[in-house]
Amino acid sequence: MDLVMKRGELEQYLYESIPLSKAMGVRVQKSNAEQVVLSAPLIPNRNHQSTVFGGSASAVAILAAWSLLHLRLKQAGLQVRLVIRQNTMTYERPIAGKFLASSSVGDLPAWERFQEMLKRKKRARISIKVRIRCHGEDVGEMLGEFVASAS
Amino acid sequence: MDLVMKRGELEQYLYESIPLSKAMGVRVQKSNAEQVVLSAPLIPNRNHQSTVFGGSASAVAILAAWSLLHLRLKQAGLQVRLVIRQNTMTYERPIAGKFLASSSVGDLPAWERFQEMLKRKKRARISIKVRIRCHGEDVGEMLGEFVASAS
Repeated sequence: MDLVMKRGELEQYLYESIPLSKAMGVRVQKSNAEQVVLSAPLIPNRNHQSTVFGGSASAVAILAAWSLLHLRLKQAGLQVRLVIRQNTMTYERPIAGKFLASSSVGDLPAWERFQEMLKRKKRARISIKVRIRCHGEDVGEMLGEFVASAS
Repeated sequence: MDLVMKRGELEQYLYESIPLSKAMGVRVQKSNAEQVVLSAPLIPNRNHQSTVFGGSASAVAILAAWSLLHLRLKQAGLQVRLVIRQNTMTYERPIAGKFLASSSVGDLPAWERFQEMLKRKKRARISIKVRIRCHGEDVGEMLGEFVASAS
């Protein structure tokens, strides 16, 4: 798939529409319809133990999932309102530095069903998985469920 | 139970140890060992639809849960390292303004078991529920699982 929004464009879009992304120092490392990778530094996201605050890891993961859906829907030419319905975040180990959040639509048939449902019923749900990595190691995972409604 | 940390003290502690709490404009509305209520305004936490970004709601909920455990452990005189293990956040409706996150230890026997286990095994888990409200209505809920290890 082609790029639908360049890295800098997505970054600017996030900063303008979701200002917390800027406060967390989020940078777009990769942005295409297959995968979005965001990074965030430790300092603005630190907790009392000088590791990453769980709420920051969770928020960056949600941004990575939301961005991927936003890009895929844009590429498919679908105009929708996209909201998060639920997310479960598992913290596997302390995050001791800059971290990466990588979102992917692992299950292509699920994406096809989602698109089909959206066209037919004007409303559909989809789950997106996000891996969190730090210093080359897996440190957490998020599963987010989103609802799209045709506008 | 008596107050163990005044509202202003907890607020200052959060701002210093978790700077994102300041960026989100978090204020401590209530702080005792029964309940912690935090508030956050819409503007620094807004999304592209001018409602509250899910990542902000989630992060404030985690802070409310963490603060309550911190206060209860402090009151019980237990010196521990407290980390979040998992959280599930359900977004029931869009959050269109200033919101409140209220944490509670609903289940007292669970708290007793947690304390007992912590004393005996030096390590224990506990779940904390947080309700999110906006304009007097329930808009979401978080369930957070934390692990405490005696230091």
